[in-house]
Amino acid sequence: MLKAGVIGTGMIGQDHIRRMTTVLAGVTVTAVTDVDLEVAKRVAGGLPGTVVHGSGEDLIADPAVDAVVVCSWGPTHERYVLAAIAAGKQVFCEKPLATTERACRRIVEAESAAGRRLVQVGYMRRYDGAYRALKAVVDSGAIGTPLMMHCAHRNAGVPAFYEKESAITDTAVHEIDMVRWMFGEEITAARVLVPRRNRNGGGLQDPLFLILELTGGAIVDVEISVNIRYGYDIRGEVIGEDGTAALGDLTPVTVRTARHLTAPIPSDWRERFASAYDVELQEWIDSLAGGGTPAGPSAWDGYAAAVVSDASVAALRTGSRVEVTLMPRPALYDPA
Amino acid sequence: MLKAGVIGTGMIGQDHIRRMTTVLAGVTVTAVTDVDLEVAKRVAGGLPGTVVHGSGEDLIADPAVDAVVVCSWGPTHERYVLAAIAAGKQVFCEKPLATTERACRRIVEAESAAGRRLVQVGYMRRYDGAYRALKAVVDSGAIGTPLMMHCAHRNAGVPAFYEKESAITDTAVHEIDMVRWMFGEEITAARVLVPRRNRNGGGLQDPLFLILELTGGAIVDVEISVNIRYGYDIRGEVIGEDGTAALGDLTPVTVRTARHLTAPIPSDWRERFASAYDVELQEWIDSLAGGGTPAGPSAWDGYAAAVVSDASVAALRTGSRVEVTLMPRPALYDPA
Amino acid sequence: MLKAGVIGTGMIGQDHIRRMTTVLAGVTVTAVTDVDLEVAKRVAGGLPGTVVHGSGEDLIADPAVDAVVVCSWGPTHERYVLAAIAAGKQVFCEKPLATTERACRRIVEAESAAGRRLVQVGYMRRYDGAYRALKAVVDSGAIGTPLMMHCAHRNAGVPAFYEKESAITDTAVHEIDMVRWMFGEEITAARVLVPRRNRNGGGLQDPLFLILELTGGAIVDVEISVNIRYGYDIRGEVIGEDGTAALGDLTPVTVRTARHLTAPIPSDWRERFASAYDVELQEWIDSLAGGGTPAGPSAWDGYAAAVVSDASVAALRTGSRVEVTLMPRPALYDPA
Amino acid sequence: MLKAGVIGTGMIGQDHIRRMTTVLAGVTVTAVTDVDLEVAKRVAGGLPGTVVHGSGEDLIADPAVDAVVVCSWGPTHERYVLAAIAAGKQVFCEKPLATTERACRRIVEAESAAGRRLVQVGYMRRYDGAYRALKAVVDSGAIGTPLMMHCAHRNAGVPAFYEKESAITDTAVHEIDMVRWMFGEEITAARVLVPRRNRNGGGLQDPLFLILELTGGAIVDVEISVNIRYGYDIRGEVIGEDGTAALGDLTPVTVRTARHLTAPIPSDWRERFASAYDVELQEWIDSLAGGGTPAGPSAWDGYAAAVVSDASVAALRTGSRVEVTLMPRPALYDPA
Repeated sequence: MLKAGVIGTGMIGQDHIRRMTTVLAGVTVTAVTDVDLEVAKRVAGGLPGTVVHGSGEDLIADPAVDAVVVCSWGPTHERYVLAAIAAGKQVFCEKPLATTERACRRIVEAESAAGRRLVQVGYMRRYDGAYRALKAVVDSGAIGTPLMMHCAHRNAGVPAFYEKESAITDTAVHEIDMVRWMFGEEITAARVLVPRRNRNGGGLQDPLFLILELTGGAIVDVEISVNIRYGYDIRGEVIGEDGTAALGDLTPVTVRTARHLTAPIPSDWRERFASAYDVELQEWIDSLAGGGTPAGPSAWDGYAAAVVSDASVAALRTGSRVEVTLMPRPALYDPA
Repeated sequence: MLKAGVIGTGMIGQDHIRRMTTVLAGVTVTAVTDVDLEVAKRVAGGLPGTVVHGSGEDLIADPAVDAVVVCSWGPTHERYVLAAIAAGKQVFCEKPLATTERACRRIVEAESAAGRRLVQVGYMRRYDGAYRALKAVVDSGAIGTPLMMHCAHRNAGVPAFYEKESAITDTAVHEIDMVRWMFGEEITAARVLVPRRNRNGGGLQDPLFLILELTGGAIVDVEISVNIRYGYDIRGEVIGEDGTAALGDLTPVTVRTARHLTAPIPSDWRERFASAYDVELQEWIDSLAGGGTPAGPSAWDGYAAAVVSDASVAALRTGSRVEVTLMPRPALYDPA
Repeated sequence: MLKAGVIGTGMIGQDHIRRMTTVLAGVTVTAVTDVDLEVAKRVAGGLPGTVVHGSGEDLIADPAVDAVVVCSWGPTHERYVLAAIAAGKQVFCEKPLATTERACRRIVEAESAAGRRLVQVGYMRRYDGAYRALKAVVDSGAIGTPLMMHCAHRNAGVPAFYEKESAITDTAVHEIDMVRWMFGEEITAARVLVPRRNRNGGGLQDPLFLILELTGGAIVDVEISVNIRYGYDIRGEVIGEDGTAALGDLTPVTVRTARHLTAPIPSDWRERFASAYDVELQEWIDSLAGGGTPAGPSAWDGYAAAVVSDASVAALRTGSRVEVTLMPRPALYDPA
Repeated sequence: MLKAGVIGTGMIGQDHIRRMTTVLAGVTVTAVTDVDLEVAKRVAGGLPGTVVHGSGEDLIADPAVDAVVVCSWGPTHERYVLAAIAAGKQVFCEKPLATTERACRRIVEAESAAGRRLVQVGYMRRYDGAYRALKAVVDSGAIGTPLMMHCAHRNAGVPAFYEKESAITDTAVHEIDMVRWMFGEEITAARVLVPRRNRNGGGLQDPLFLILELTGGAIVDVEISVNIRYGYDIRGEVIGEDGTAALGDLTPVTVRTARHLTAPIPSDWRERFASAYDVELQEWIDSLAGGGTPAGPSAWDGYAAAVVSDASVAALRTGSRVEVTLMPRPALYDPA
């Protein structure tokens, strides 16, 4: 039974705690903390045997904590991940790994110095059944070498604090990680085109059209529409030399009424990716049994996503193509 | 943490133990037994703190067992379910509830006498996301009163011990339970038509065409094809006054190669219904927390399925329409 | 250029005249007649060089008429078809070939006596692209020997004069012909089941569930729903030994709005089968060039449909299975 | 009956002659000519009453020709179209209208000077049922103002003479015209990105990714893959403020065999757009009855497509964004 300590008991922290206590097997939440200790206490109140620590550092030091789950505010991620590495404890860090390229690099260097994989980053697309089926087709060679990928990331709406660059840093960052994983290559350049503005978005620049280039020459485009009213919709089609493979519609039910065939579309990411979050954490828990190594997105993946995200934001600001330059990849992150 | 004892450690018993120990939350397997004690010991060997009992009765009597999961051979179900009722313990019984109408009736009477719901039967279709979405549409009134339902239950192949009547008792019995739940009505009569025989089935009479009548006059047809090679496929469309609602294709990925658009079809029920089994047991576990009542298929549902299944077998044997006659339903099973 | 004479200038006659004058190639309408001569004159008024005859017999006798198109009231079909056979002229007869089995038999006997194919009956499903694609798959052997077929024939609504038996004689008769063509076999028995009644149908018995048996043992079921509001929908799936083949959705456009993916459904048969009518007549015209033989549904097909339709009506009236008995098939109708 | 003269009896000319003589109504082919008179004579040999002229100019001057169909080699289009305008005869010109912007402009000016619409250009996408359904949804406002459109134009393979720029001038030019029609706006700039090269294309640069900007700010992207083996596939999805609308799959039949649901994909454009060509010419023929005006793509459309095509080729050569500059639109081409 893995003993997990959770740093940050806000919305996503509470959701992971719910998941670990009422959905997943092989894990128990032994400790929590939060910048607002009252919230941490209230959350712990519903969990028998869960202690509240005064700080993330105290929680990491607790011998009753085997593994740390970081769900705190982004700018604090670096501190807690580095502390966990220093303590030799496994750490699952919600995205982003850290809020600056430099901070991500420090984590990569610390983990490399430690000499073993201790960090997993919360890019959960890789755990979605449809994306996995898509990758299996691509990897099988059935469509030949992949040359392009068309993606769309659509939200019915976004909260008031969502800003122009959030479309890259909060939204398309999922595609940025997914594309690196799908192709098994790095992203080398980014462009952002700006179509006619959607009236639903108030003053927001929406949609955006992100275009990424990959090491092997493939081109990936991502339509980012975050006020498209009709629902939450994640699309992806890989174009190969001999054919294409696309995410399916996952339709649970089709209804024929009023001159139309209809199928439901999810309202938001919770509905679409609920089980991906479950699988993500369960596989992390399972991979750690008996001192194992986490198989999911690494600190390197978190670092690379940050660099590409920065380049994309620069591309949005300047209107130009921006090249992506990564540090040399430490051997720890060599593909198996 | 629910303490579960498992009677029967064959294929399905082992699968439920795996589920309870490595997938689901809130449950621990404290005891097991099997007609072959060596198998039970081998299974328990991998589980820290799980004891092996010499008999199902001993397991049921164990104070370290809160709830019993019956996965033994069908003819023994009645004995263990009655013992659990007598002990006042919750019992999850794999289908069938019992192998004769009379045995099912004794269980219904014992639970009624006990005065509270203690029995849940393992009809897992009710926990499948697509069937639930279908039922939600029907219940919403969007298609008007349901008048018909077309079903197909297709297997790529069946094992050697599968006999003529297995198409009813092992296969269509899932539709028999599903239809009662979908319509919220009882089945009143059955017919079985016998089409041209599939060469893939050896001497087996395959396919069959089962036609059921419901209390309110609706008619349900079920194509049962158990050697159809192409895969495992479960279809269902409810025909209402104003429209229809059908199970969707659940396609995770579509591939375009070699002049065709293709989408994968599951090989077997494990692939199609994997998560339904998880949801079924997790909801049972959750419903029992704090002395709660199981919300799933009841002993009455197990009894009714047995009676309809018997009538369908008689219809197959005689070639005639056979009426279904149920005992009066005890008040314990009144819909909420 | 085929010179066609049209008997009956009501709705369907006018539609065929429009088709032959403004859509199809290789045909000109040289003569028309109608029981209401004023209507015939009005229709001919828009067509340069088209004469109006006082009777169908006069039209058939006109040397400027190569081929006759019978669109008059059903009970008059026999008379005009027999007259065309007697005149040695090709005749395209809208369904039904004749309104009684006895009348159909007389046509079959007359054409057999004439010793060559002169009659084609207007069963246009055989000319629909989707049905042809379905038959091509079945004939290819890709799904093995066909064992069953599930059909649905759904109308949004029906006119006031539509009666209980119209569901067989006007509606399901299309499936009766299609099934004979799809399987290349005769129908040997019919049953009709009566589900719960649709409130949209007034007092009408709707839906019906027609079950047909074929020479080779295959079973075909047809849901007939004629007040199902949501639109006109024709479904068909053939169940083979190794797989199934089904009519596709023919979706021209899919729309994502308001939490739903939607695709349009036709309002009525005109929309769904418009091009099938065009293809039907064009192929008939083309087949007659240079004294050729019509390749479409024959008088035998019209006769067989009538016999099966009568048996189905008897099955609806009696609630029993009714056997179909056909006269011996004259050699003229042997498959090529 | 429209009397058509066909200039150019190569592959497409012969196909239009076949269409006008064996498929469409209201037209007769009275004259033909070709640069190779032997071919013209052979083609005319199968057509009773069709004369062969020694030159396009002679054909245009023939009083037995009401309307001219230009199917000759591209560089000769200008000459014949101008001659037809000079003769005051209607002319249907296969794409391209002419092979240079300057030549297109001369046609526009000549037709403007003539003061009435005499020219229609053969962009047949506008006559495809699926594109028309898509445009109807966009025009209905159901998805809000359109902001983007994603297109793909895929060929299984291309002939040996296909060159790098053919992907723009022969292939994407269909999307260039379609987009102007779909949005009712002009294209203002073009970019072409060059993904990893498909090994199936020999040395050809394939695929290409064309990005177009429209007057109102919308952005359209077109994947052009001309060696993608799997078949001919034309995709399009319009992204609006409130939803999206996409071309449907038009699936005539779905087959379930060997663990997969499959649907056929056309081999080439003939299969996909066969009826669009029929509708295109039939509507042109119908529109000319009684001295009417052609409603289809105008000389202005042909001119604009040429300018955008040139800009796209320049974008491909330079790797830069290239602006599109059109001459002022003559009043003759004002939208109705």
